Amino acid sequence: MGLIGGSLARALRRGGQCDEIVGCGRDEAHLQKALTLGVIDRYETDIAAAVAGADVVVLAIPLRAMVSVLQQMLMGLAPNAVVTDVGSAKGCVVEEARAILGGRLCDFVPGHPIAGTEKSGVEASFAELFDQRSVILTPLEETAPEQSARVRAMWETAGASVTEMTVLHHDEVLAATSHLPHLLAFSLVNTLASLDESKDIFAYAAGGFRDFTRIASSDPVMWRDICLENRSAMLEVLQLFNHDLQQLEEAVRDNDGDAVVEVFSRAKRTRDRFCG
Amino acid sequence: MGLIGGSLARALRRGGQCDEIVGCGRDEAHLQKALTLGVIDRYETDIAAAVAGADVVVLAIPLRAMVSVLQQMLMGLAPNAVVTDVGSAKGCVVEEARAILGGRLCDFVPGHPIAGTEKSGVEASFAELFDQRSVILTPLEETAPEQSARVRAMWETAGASVTEMTVLHHDEVLAATSHLPHLLAFSLVNTLASLDESKDIFAYAAGGFRDFTRIASSDPVMWRDICLENRSAMLEVLQLFNHDLQQLEEAVRDNDGDAVVEVFSRAKRTRDRFCG
Repeated sequence: MGLIGGSLARALRRGGQCDEIVGCGRDEAHLQKALTLGVIDRYETDIAAAVAGADVVVLAIPLRAMVSVLQQMLMGLAPNAVVTDVGSAKGCVVEEARAILGGRLCDFVPGHPIAGTEKSGVEASFAELFDQRSVILTPLEETAPEQSARVRAMWETAGASVTEMTVLHHDEVLAATSHLPHLLAFSLVNTLASLDESKDIFAYAAGGFRDFTRIASSDPVMWRDICLENRSAMLEVLQLFNHDLQQLEEAVRDNDGDAVVEVFSRAKRTRDRFCG
Repeated sequence: MGLIGGSLARALRRGGQCDEIVGCGRDEAHLQKALTLGVIDRYETDIAAAVAGADVVVLAIPLRAMVSVLQQMLMGLAPNAVVTDVGSAKGCVVEEARAILGGRLCDFVPGHPIAGTEKSGVEASFAELFDQRSVILTPLEETAPEQSARVRAMWETAGASVTEMTVLHHDEVLAATSHLPHLLAFSLVNTLASLDESKDIFAYAAGGFRDFTRIASSDPVMWRDICLENRSAMLEVLQLFNHDLQQLEEAVRDNDGDAVVEVFSRAKRTRDRFCG
């Protein structure tokens, strides 16, 4: 019942395809808030009780809670229920699901909505979060096609467009376009925090800096989990980044304007193309 | 007559404090556009002719054009005119002004409005660009206080709040909060461009990535000049960044969650504080 779970609940209610939405979590005050906001119809704090009788179970939880929640959920899961998750890394989730779900692995559809904000919590949730956004599903060999289709239909009801790819491809793509940028933004702001103490630099930060560092306002614990759980793909793209940055640094040091403008121009062309 | 010059002209006109605004540039079609848009009252392509009789001369030009423009301008400058610039690095401009302006150095007030967008050109200019933004002036020992006061009054008319600092402090602050972030954004997008060719990664980039890379859509030639002209301050803060990033990389590699979350949390606290 955070930003993603809450927004999905709102989007599905907007879509009119749910008889009942049951929230689950550890913090009852938070669940009560979700109830008061009309995001859910009722809640349970016991995971097996929450999933009992559910057609669709969505695990919108921190990556590091996955093992425990999968185990507890399994006991209450209805025979034909489908289970999906929203984790930002998929390799780790799949590995855990393989170890825990046994005969129910065919009912598990790993998923990841490419949407979010730097805010957290059900109070930040909104029904439009997934409109025109991508959701990536990474079904396994064992996943039943009709269960994939149900999860696809759910996300389409929520306004998203759904694509499928392999677990490995997903983790590489997200390491490059999401996990590494978060690491860099957190790291830069952390470095500048020390500088700010002596030089008062943030007073003169402009809009470009605000945009560049917006993702450094994201939830530190959630992002620790993502960076560690997907660390092999992330360290790989970080190595590419470091290599290229070092070349650029040498070009700047050598006052090599042609080399610098070549990098900057290619970056601008690329971004202008994909961000229209 | 680009984004900054055009926006300042619009803001000063809005403030009702200008009898006449004269544009100058090399591209007559571009100046004609500024005239058609009502940004300027008339234009000159000859620099000495453009500044003749002006009370205030604003050099809103690329850093690398400064030497040539200062030289040509000097010939037409009225006796009591004040000259200011909007360059993103100040050490290089001051060095050139010292070499060229001679007895008129007292009439030069180095300046830098901390405002801009990733767009360029007079067609992207707007009167509100400087509202509630900071303008940094870095007057020299030789600068006449009454000339500093005139430039301050001009920027206040344009909606900005004006602070003064030393040239060195300016260049350090801007290296940290603007020049290095631009270098990192350009470099990351350049690295990912290669990855995109094989893995189609940008199709799944979310809003966080768009914000993070917005500054990579900035003008490559302008940013080449800034990064090279302020390279000593930028390389210094880049070294700090590289050092801290390497430590963070090791923490990720070692699966050291406490170290990772400490960096992320400090970054989030810092950003939340200075960006409200």
